[in-house]
Amino acid sequence: MNVEPTTFSAEDYFATQTPPSTLHHDVEQVKNFVARQAKEGRKVALVTSGGTTVPLELNVVRFLDNFSAGTRGATSAEYFLKAGYAVIFMHRQFSLQPFSRHYSHSTNPFLDFLEIEKDGTQVDSTPRISVTPEKREDLLEVLSTYKAVHAAGTLHSLTYVTVNDYLWLLRALSQELAVLRRNAMFYLAAAVSDFFLPRQKMSEHKIQSGKGSLHIEMDQVPKILGSVVDEWTREGFVISFKLETDPALLIPKARAALERYGHQVVIGNDLHRRKHEVVFVSRKPLPSLPPGTHPEPTTAVTNVNGDVPTRDTLSDTFVEYWLRIDIPDSTVPASQVKEIEEDIVTELVKRHSAWIQQSVASEVSRKA
Amino acid sequence: MNVEPTTFSAEDYFATQTPPSTLHHDVEQVKNFVARQAKEGRKVALVTSGGTTVPLELNVVRFLDNFSAGTRGATSAEYFLKAGYAVIFMHRQFSLQPFSRHYSHSTNPFLDFLEIEKDGTQVDSTPRISVTPEKREDLLEVLSTYKAVHAAGTLHSLTYVTVNDYLWLLRALSQELAVLRRNAMFYLAAAVSDFFLPRQKMSEHKIQSGKGSLHIEMDQVPKILGSVVDEWTREGFVISFKLETDPALLIPKARAALERYGHQVVIGNDLHRRKHEVVFVSRKPLPSLPPGTHPEPTTAVTNVNGDVPTRDTLSDTFVEYWLRIDIPDSTVPASQVKEIEEDIVTELVKRHSAWIQQSVASEVSRKA
Repeated sequence: MNVEPTTFSAEDYFATQTPPSTLHHDVEQVKNFVARQAKEGRKVALVTSGGTTVPLELNVVRFLDNFSAGTRGATSAEYFLKAGYAVIFMHRQFSLQPFSRHYSHSTNPFLDFLEIEKDGTQVDSTPRISVTPEKREDLLEVLSTYKAVHAAGTLHSLTYVTVNDYLWLLRALSQELAVLRRNAMFYLAAAVSDFFLPRQKMSEHKIQSGKGSLHIEMDQVPKILGSVVDEWTREGFVISFKLETDPALLIPKARAALERYGHQVVIGNDLHRRKHEVVFVSRKPLPSLPPGTHPEPTTAVTNVNGDVPTRDTLSDTFVEYWLRIDIPDSTVPASQVKEIEEDIVTELVKRHSAWIQQSVASEVSRKA
Repeated sequence: MNVEPTTFSAEDYFATQTPPSTLHHDVEQVKNFVARQAKEGRKVALVTSGGTTVPLELNVVRFLDNFSAGTRGATSAEYFLKAGYAVIFMHRQFSLQPFSRHYSHSTNPFLDFLEIEKDGTQVDSTPRISVTPEKREDLLEVLSTYKAVHAAGTLHSLTYVTVNDYLWLLRALSQELAVLRRNAMFYLAAAVSDFFLPRQKMSEHKIQSGKGSLHIEMDQVPKILGSVVDEWTREGFVISFKLETDPALLIPKARAALERYGHQVVIGNDLHRRKHEVVFVSRKPLPSLPPGTHPEPTTAVTNVNGDVPTRDTLSDTFVEYWLRIDIPDSTVPASQVKEIEEDIVTELVKRHSAWIQQSVASEVSRKA
């Protein structure tokens, strides 16, 4: 694996790497889902969630992974559904999912709150199994919403494992979502690897450890957000995420991403504070808005938690908007803890509506 | 991270790396569990299960991982419990667990088989939630066993994430299990990394991708199986696993491991056939058995599936015993599919008993 690193453009990448075998099937299902939502007039959020793997061997034993349980994506998907969006939940296999996330087998195993009923009336038949009274109330809320969403057909889930699966799926899905124009939102919360090992450089079999230490040299994953914005789905409302562990890098890196890709919002978060603090970084609205659009900057909303948007005086281009919630008291039951994703989604739904309105207004003004 | 690789002995490793913060707490719990099982006369199997991670950064964003859902370990743990063993289930956080493994949130989500009862008799109270009749029978079996095991207190679970957590826990737990002498079995099914990144070489923050490709150089994990066998728990019955993707390497590598560590059994499996074929590799019984021990080699059992132990004529030292089950018909319901772990456990329980008997017999003959 000691080959010189190559730099892949998105085009090179898709020309040289192999699509996942389930791609066609997955895309057909998404196509049908999107067509139905379009007909029913729903906005659609593509939520990506969980880490991606980078296999080091063709017969995979070892892989590089990105830390992510999928909490941000799974939680946000629930709030998008509550806000009336249809959701395509593209997630890492076995990462957290909307609704079932409340019942982790490790921390809240569902077998613990089922009981076998032993009344004498059903001698011959299989005994009934039911949820214990003390767990009923919490579960009822989750279960009712889950069943309502399934009945309405507004949630479509599909999975990826490797960064290669992820890239192929994201390309295909953004192309499918293009038909929705501004009604599509891209909420790219997956923790995608920056590096990958091209198929051509992979070891066929398990790397043998007898030979001393392991050297891995990987190539950079092409920055495909640029292609999403410029080529595949030019009118979607696109949100990307920046996770850093060094707080000093968060804002500069978020701004650099907006500068580079030209999408709408970067949500920055620090690894250790991500559950109660995030920052929305976006461009300031241009002064040259078409006549007829609302003159207020879309970021000038009042935060329910008392924060106000801050402007960086050093930059005329970007605006930051901090969202914070209180760190919950450990005595509050898990089901009653306020989740920051609720506020993230509320804010994004507002911005997305404004973005759709802007387009309508500019259309109207063009026609006028 | 461009420092020369170091070779760590087990001793060096524990002298230079940091124990997990929960180690003391975890060990105390195991100590109590083992004491209770000893008092109640149960054999104890330590089952390790799932992959280990190798963090690349101190504030972990990226890590190397080993492919493993934890199926082998979680399934085997159930069969050990059925065979009357107490089980310490030391597993990768969020990997599969005994019992709940049947209800993966991805493939068999439990929310799908719960129904909200809407009879009119409970106007004011929270409606009851119960398991749908068609799912009742399968769930009843799993749930009854789960509840029986919890009532008997024969399953103790604890988790690890990194290879460092794993190594510290394995050392501490084998030391705790030493009091059980031959009544302890070590079923080391976890997929443990061969490589690690010493704390001293780790990057504090997220590795920045702007700088081109990623280079990682890792050190070899010390071969601590040797210390388990020679130092920490000298009388335990120790089974290790070898997973390979190149079938030609399986037997030679299994033999080399037995040669190197002197433990009892290596179970070899090929990545693609592991669910229906494994091979037990062990030493041939020495001719110089103490008088009074059973003269039959413990490997000369008849396999229920019609296989017989094969002897490699090229080697007088090792014996291989292949265990195979039929590849299940896809029409068979998941709950009725034969699992190879059932046969693996049956075979090991037999060998473990013979091993315990051997010790008793040799004790008796020494005293006679």
